[in-house]
Amino acid sequence: MDGNKFPAEIGPDDHGAATYSARQKTILVAGGAGFVGSHLCDALIGAGNHVICVDNLETGRESNVAHLFANPRFSFIRWDIIDPLPIDGPLDQIYNMACAASPPLYQKLPIHTFRTCIEGSYNLLELARQKRARILQSSTSEVYGDPEVSPQSEKYRGAVNTMGPRACYDEGKRAAETLFWEYGAHQGVETRVARIFNTYGPRMNPQDGRVVSNFVVQALTGDDITIYGDGLQTRSFAYVDDLVDGLMRLMASDCTQAVNLGNPGEFTMRELADMVLAQTGSKSRLVTRPLPVDDPRQRKPDIRLAQTLLGWSPTVPLEEGLTRTIAHFAAELAQKRSRKELV
Amino acid sequence: MDGNKFPAEIGPDDHGAATYSARQKTILVAGGAGFVGSHLCDALIGAGNHVICVDNLETGRESNVAHLFANPRFSFIRWDIIDPLPIDGPLDQIYNMACAASPPLYQKLPIHTFRTCIEGSYNLLELARQKRARILQSSTSEVYGDPEVSPQSEKYRGAVNTMGPRACYDEGKRAAETLFWEYGAHQGVETRVARIFNTYGPRMNPQDGRVVSNFVVQALTGDDITIYGDGLQTRSFAYVDDLVDGLMRLMASDCTQAVNLGNPGEFTMRELADMVLAQTGSKSRLVTRPLPVDDPRQRKPDIRLAQTLLGWSPTVPLEEGLTRTIAHFAAELAQKRSRKELV
Repeated sequence: MDGNKFPAEIGPDDHGAATYSARQKTILVAGGAGFVGSHLCDALIGAGNHVICVDNLETGRESNVAHLFANPRFSFIRWDIIDPLPIDGPLDQIYNMACAASPPLYQKLPIHTFRTCIEGSYNLLELARQKRARILQSSTSEVYGDPEVSPQSEKYRGAVNTMGPRACYDEGKRAAETLFWEYGAHQGVETRVARIFNTYGPRMNPQDGRVVSNFVVQALTGDDITIYGDGLQTRSFAYVDDLVDGLMRLMASDCTQAVNLGNPGEFTMRELADMVLAQTGSKSRLVTRPLPVDDPRQRKPDIRLAQTLLGWSPTVPLEEGLTRTIAHFAAELAQKRSRKELV
Repeated sequence: MDGNKFPAEIGPDDHGAATYSARQKTILVAGGAGFVGSHLCDALIGAGNHVICVDNLETGRESNVAHLFANPRFSFIRWDIIDPLPIDGPLDQIYNMACAASPPLYQKLPIHTFRTCIEGSYNLLELARQKRARILQSSTSEVYGDPEVSPQSEKYRGAVNTMGPRACYDEGKRAAETLFWEYGAHQGVETRVARIFNTYGPRMNPQDGRVVSNFVVQALTGDDITIYGDGLQTRSFAYVDDLVDGLMRLMASDCTQAVNLGNPGEFTMRELADMVLAQTGSKSRLVTRPLPVDDPRQRKPDIRLAQTLLGWSPTVPLEEGLTRTIAHFAAELAQKRSRKELV
């Protein structure tokens, strides 16, 4: 994302809604080498802050932040947050973006996923308490499980199966929200909780099995496009720049309750596939596979809280975000091909 | 409870349902000095086993197991399970009964409650893996939160608020179920999960704010009987001997899914108060107080799974269980009074 997009100082907007102030701060981003985390690092650096990026590079990629290494306001620590963090000096803010977030990746080491959510949050909350730093948790629409209501508002208590292959992530994230609530209510820590819905954009890991990167890579390489189940299950897709904007607004706000961040535009998997095929001009065929266990039928955020309290709404339509994402993956594939040709 | 109640060996019953075998085993009971845990220790010792009782005595009481200290098959370790357990020698079974279980007590140190549920379970599961021991988790009807359906079957996914004063326990217990599922599915550990509904009986802690002990003690001392809200919220009460029988049957079964253990008899708080007043002949008055946050309106277990898979049903009617419980508390109060008179 373009770091210049965020001016150095933004005050409350005309409607009095909270927006983010970007005075120079020292900000720790756990999971900062991941897909969303790296865009957040870009935006925070672009707004003039010092950023300490912490990542164990289990699913994050060094290449996502390599362009920041030369910046004197950026530092990188390879560290697993399930161990207490050795951070010297003051910290103003902490963003917890750490955790494998796609089912095939978070199910590879499920107990580690679970501990990253819970013990990782605990360690970061303790750090926030010691440093008197404000801390934001990247929670997830997965706390709603396979929802019986649509759209999902923050009041909805969810339908999560505690005993199944998705639970290591879903329950890990739910329990992490509880820890954040406790530290906010009883430990004097300023906590913020974002429930992030499906997000897409450049730097998605093509190996992580998310539907947008799957479809785009399959279309660009001419492979079959895989639809799970009947393909009529829906998702809502937010472009990563919109999400990062929402996260920074939430951090700057005084909102201590959980806030949905997502794009309420709802698309079936088949609609998404058609859009990708149309934009890439690909001849890939659609093939179907069985729906995984506990896969939610639909997901659609109710974002009235974010609109009211943060003055935030997503601004990038799916067509436009897809164009940017396809351009990124096309460039990445071209680079890989030219490397292979050189070898 | 009477340890002789459990014969030394029980095979599959006439209906082929699982029952518990009680060959001499070495069994660790975490939380063994608590209300339910101590009755479980009695039953396991009574059935000829060696029992290692582990308790940090935060809410458990030494007096609950003091009568077992002279038994060579019983040992006691004061230990907090949020630290890995130093247990030498073989173990056949582990029961995890550890955690403050009543709102006023578990909300005193909420982060410790949460860590007891999760890190405590993790430590016990690791111990089970090392010792190749079968392990049973005492989960809870609290995983259903404030349920929208009645009765609650094991398939119901619950309505738990992740961000509120009860969440340290509710989400802690939900996340613990997830850990048990993971260790069962991917770590080769034999796991059992009981979802325990309200239980009552002798040795309830009169300070823990549970409704049965509250009402009984208030009636016996002539204090006002406190009803929260309109008193029309319902609970189902299982007598502790029935519960212990269910836990041992579940441990002996091959059932790896979560199983409700509770008495489906449903009573309003007012009905319970009337029963206690009638049995004690007390002149206590009923007074009302506001309902606490997130207090569930009703709780009633669907126990068809336990009936089918374990051949288990509760056998002690509320009237009879109350009689035994009142006798216990009356004796305890008399003892306290005589001690005071002696001082």
